[in-house]
Amino acid sequence: MIKVAIVGYGNLGRGVERSLKQNPDMELVGVFTRRAPETVETDGATAYHMQDLVAKKNEIDVCILCGGSATDLPVQTPEITQHFNTVDSFDTHAKIPEHFAAVDQVAKENHTVSVISTGWDPGLFSLNRLYAQAILPQGETYTFWGKGVSQGHSDALRRIEGIADATQYTIPNTEIIERLKAGEKLTLTTRDKHLRECFVVLEEGADEEKITEEIVTMPNYFSDYDTTVHFISQEELNRDHKAAPHGGTVLHTGTTHENTKQVIEYRLDLESNPEFTASVLVAYARAAVRLANEKQFGAFTVLDIAPKYLSPIDVETLRKELL
Amino acid sequence: MIKVAIVGYGNLGRGVERSLKQNPDMELVGVFTRRAPETVETDGATAYHMQDLVAKKNEIDVCILCGGSATDLPVQTPEITQHFNTVDSFDTHAKIPEHFAAVDQVAKENHTVSVISTGWDPGLFSLNRLYAQAILPQGETYTFWGKGVSQGHSDALRRIEGIADATQYTIPNTEIIERLKAGEKLTLTTRDKHLRECFVVLEEGADEEKITEEIVTMPNYFSDYDTTVHFISQEELNRDHKAAPHGGTVLHTGTTHENTKQVIEYRLDLESNPEFTASVLVAYARAAVRLANEKQFGAFTVLDIAPKYLSPIDVETLRKELL
Repeated sequence: MIKVAIVGYGNLGRGVERSLKQNPDMELVGVFTRRAPETVETDGATAYHMQDLVAKKNEIDVCILCGGSATDLPVQTPEITQHFNTVDSFDTHAKIPEHFAAVDQVAKENHTVSVISTGWDPGLFSLNRLYAQAILPQGETYTFWGKGVSQGHSDALRRIEGIADATQYTIPNTEIIERLKAGEKLTLTTRDKHLRECFVVLEEGADEEKITEEIVTMPNYFSDYDTTVHFISQEELNRDHKAAPHGGTVLHTGTTHENTKQVIEYRLDLESNPEFTASVLVAYARAAVRLANEKQFGAFTVLDIAPKYLSPIDVETLRKELL
Repeated sequence: MIKVAIVGYGNLGRGVERSLKQNPDMELVGVFTRRAPETVETDGATAYHMQDLVAKKNEIDVCILCGGSATDLPVQTPEITQHFNTVDSFDTHAKIPEHFAAVDQVAKENHTVSVISTGWDPGLFSLNRLYAQAILPQGETYTFWGKGVSQGHSDALRRIEGIADATQYTIPNTEIIERLKAGEKLTLTTRDKHLRECFVVLEEGADEEKITEEIVTMPNYFSDYDTTVHFISQEELNRDHKAAPHGGTVLHTGTTHENTKQVIEYRLDLESNPEFTASVLVAYARAAVRLANEKQFGAFTVLDIAPKYLSPIDVETLRKELL
């Protein structure tokens, strides 16, 4: 049995707790949190204070770090990797090399393994981009996200004065996807690839027109997109727009000899983004423990790990059944 | 530069020759054939007789074996792996474990690397089955092939008395795929998953009705499927049905907490099956050479090889650009 600790218990941590129940070779030691443990409502796991983590060193094979990329993981992953094998979902793209270097040094010094930046993007989408580009070097890779809820954009809406609550969907332009798959060569702008749809609950007395204008012109978040805004009631938002679906497509269109077209497509359609991301983290937690058992210490990403390390099934059986 | 030899020069070998031209880190030493070399028309490569292969040992980093699975590869892969790193596309499913064991022993004894059973199925589809099942253990994996030409079924048609020429398409049942993606749980028979469509040129005086009956009732090949038969002229067959498109879908539908649905889909849409398969072999040839440089000798499959080994780009750049 692989003994797992969850560090940080928000939506992702809860997803990991749920995923572990589907993996009979893994058992959950507990949830470690900065909050008062007695205030944390889990799905059955025991909650401990974060400061008790290191004392449980002998009971834990791997820590799945479920904090945020902005402030938690840059500190937590190197710190906890001093004592434990770890997995994180660090997704601040520009800082991944720096994060990798910091964690790699700690892991090598302390004879641990850390798998950083897992999940689906970065993660499964990254490795699909790699496979596709290596196989069809004469080609183009396109990544589309959605239809799904963007937490960052929803938060940006909620920060606007006069908005009580909001959900933002990122919507891929399916017509463009179909044209690319049919072999058209397109030069795409940000506006071509995705649409943004906002469901907004106003505070009393707020001005629809003014707020719409403020949304669609917001730099970085909305101004480069075609954005539609719907004003609805809090009841409607709660009923229809509080789930966290997401997904997306990695599309690679290449040519082999002359103009022979070859298309590789990888698609995710997820009813729960945090639960799916959690499931990826759990599979890579298994890989982390195995790599540590083989004394392959250091930091890893999904690009560095052979597929077989993710499965609980022995490789002879995998060869027999999956090849 | 990685120096490559092509062993066997049919459609697949020709595809490898074409693919190598798209990979600037690789160069083709020559094509090795059992035929008289002067009778082999290549796309520019020098043709040598197979018996001259071993003498060129110092000029070759990896041999891409392009023979057939029925009789060539079971003999050639172990034999050539005594002297060279090799890659093959051995696809006789039931014999893969045996083939792996034989090649692994030779490779370990001779300090070489052999990547067996690459291509797209077995190959890319196998690793997608693995990733999906490891991430969503509570789920079902479905593989659909086509729309594409099945050489085996086309050959079976051509063996029928009264048939001059024929092409057979395997067609996935897209309605079933859509229902599975929508979350339906279906128990599928062979007949439900694929249709078979035959384009047949008759010899003079052959009886359409009798031949149709013989086709649709042919055990193993057609009797378990809904099969349609079209009789056309040789001109029409040559014009419209002599390409080798193929493709398919690996669909994994899983659930995380309770009934939260998650769908992973991997799709290939290929205008040339042999050229795409060749492109996969070439990427794994690069991996074979790198594994040999790291002295990781033995047999490998796609399940055993980390994605980074396939790319000509260094891993720091991959982390920066693809994650």
